[in-house]
Amino acid sequence: MVRPAPEDSTPARPRLRKRSRKREDSMADTIFSKIISGHIPSHKVYEDEQVLAFLDINPLSTGHTLVIPKEPAQTMDQLSDDSAAALGRVLPRLCRAVMAVTGVSEYNVLENNGAGAHQAIAHVHFHIIPKPNRTQGLGVGWPAGSLAPEEGKQLAARIAAAVQGRGA
Amino acid sequence: MVRPAPEDSTPARPRLRKRSRKREDSMADTIFSKIISGHIPSHKVYEDEQVLAFLDINPLSTGHTLVIPKEPAQTMDQLSDDSAAALGRVLPRLCRAVMAVTGVSEYNVLENNGAGAHQAIAHVHFHIIPKPNRTQGLGVGWPAGSLAPEEGKQLAARIAAAVQGRGA
Repeated sequence: MVRPAPEDSTPARPRLRKRSRKREDSMADTIFSKIISGHIPSHKVYEDEQVLAFLDINPLSTGHTLVIPKEPAQTMDQLSDDSAAALGRVLPRLCRAVMAVTGVSEYNVLENNGAGAHQAIAHVHFHIIPKPNRTQGLGVGWPAGSLAPEEGKQLAARIAAAVQGRGA
Repeated sequence: MVRPAPEDSTPARPRLRKRSRKREDSMADTIFSKIISGHIPSHKVYEDEQVLAFLDINPLSTGHTLVIPKEPAQTMDQLSDDSAAALGRVLPRLCRAVMAVTGVSEYNVLENNGAGAHQAIAHVHFHIIPKPNRTQGLGVGWPAGSLAPEEGKQLAARIAAAVQGRGA
């Protein structure tokens, strides 16, 4: 762990960059940032200015592909709109390519945020996971409840206000 | 359901429109297209020209939100780049809003394609699903395997070629 240097520390203890909102400091050493920089090899399938896609080396099924922004955001809520749009834009063509090569027509696109939600690497990544059969691919548990009309109305109003930046 | 008038067939047997690549015919009557058109109400949290977001009425956890394109594509591979980019662009702000209102910091973003991959409505939709604890929210099964270096190299080359439209 790195602690920020005090304002007037000695030269022997170099000042750290100011911590950005996107946690660039804490992101600097994930395996994905090292793949982006080329310090760790990957089985690359696509790259543009904002996005990199490569095979997951621990696939849930053949063709399991990761799609990541070059922007070092830890979770989706921390990602810039532009990077998120760039990620979205390439998903259709990457899904088509994975389907064409694997011959599997069903698949899940998944992006996990936080260890409790199964995020293993602290850098935003979409999984494209072919679902060839019941045992391979993503296992999905779906403990659905129900939403009462009045509860839904109030909750939607609060989220809508939060999207517009009018509090939560 | 509205059927187009036939060009020259007998009135008793109207000609079907040519099936479009995006399956607009089969999309015409999903519950989501009726929500987009306003024929079915929803607990709306966000809308722009290309995107609509509203609460799932069978939530996996409080705040479970659906984000859909207005373009009537059945699966991600059939969606236009522009619609996919528009969906991606709004994900960060919607995730922040759901987090702010629910107070839950961990969550999954999931988009299912095909009945075998747990898609229930034949219109592209991203789920934003807060993960407040182990029992609520998305259940994730992760039957990970491994990818041998040579297998990965060859598979990545084939997918990369397919992304570029050079066969599968």
